[in-house]
Amino acid sequence: MTDSLSTTLAALADPTRRAILARLSRGNASVSELAEPFAMSMPAVSKHLKVLEHAGLITRGRSAQWRPCQLHAGPLKEVAHWVDEFRRFWEESFDRLDDYLQVLKTEERKKEKKHVRKK
Amino acid sequence: MTDSLSTTLAALADPTRRAILARLSRGNASVSELAEPFAMSMPAVSKHLKVLEHAGLITRGRSAQWRPCQLHAGPLKEVAHWVDEFRRFWEESFDRLDDYLQVLKTEERKKEKKHVRKK
Repeated sequence: MTDSLSTTLAALADPTRRAILARLSRGNASVSELAEPFAMSMPAVSKHLKVLEHAGLITRGRSAQWRPCQLHAGPLKEVAHWVDEFRRFWEESFDRLDDYLQVLKTEERKKEKKHVRKK
Repeated sequence: MTDSLSTTLAALADPTRRAILARLSRGNASVSELAEPFAMSMPAVSKHLKVLEHAGLITRGRSAQWRPCQLHAGPLKEVAHWVDEFRRFWEESFDRLDDYLQVLKTEERKKEKKHVRKK
């Protein structure tokens, strides 16, 4: 049995499925509305929607005949939570770069002062 | 060709690979050190490491004979950036729940006041 986070990440590992979620973040849409911008066949889109539905990333209307798709962001929260644990690693490396730039600036200023004094 | 974000997400869609990254967030480790907690064979761990290395999530020492693995968090920043675009969706649903709880509390307080007045 696959854990839910792995199922979510596998569902997200496709640019078309991520684009479908981005589209749904702007409002509910039917399968044909979703198929349009991708120039994809309806069965191809349906296949992607099944993967997203299985991962709990979308829900589909049962009553209306056009069965609108709706974004369900719950599993994305789990992804954000997992990846946030590593945030300090990319922020630290950015801080180190920032520290280095400060050192360069200070050295540059010292050189300028020396130059001015010589004049 | 697979885009880099899809490659990263596919690499993360496995609990063992995520556990390896969590282990490396506490410090560099050799393949045998990584294999230990998982009760996995060295070839099985090596296979996972290759997937992580291909996704740019780890780098491996070239000089030392034990070739220590090191976490490389850059691709995780890209994941965080993508998922952050959806943050308002789960925060909104939490806000709605919070609003509802506030309504319930207010109603409860009204009932209590009525009850006190009757006494």
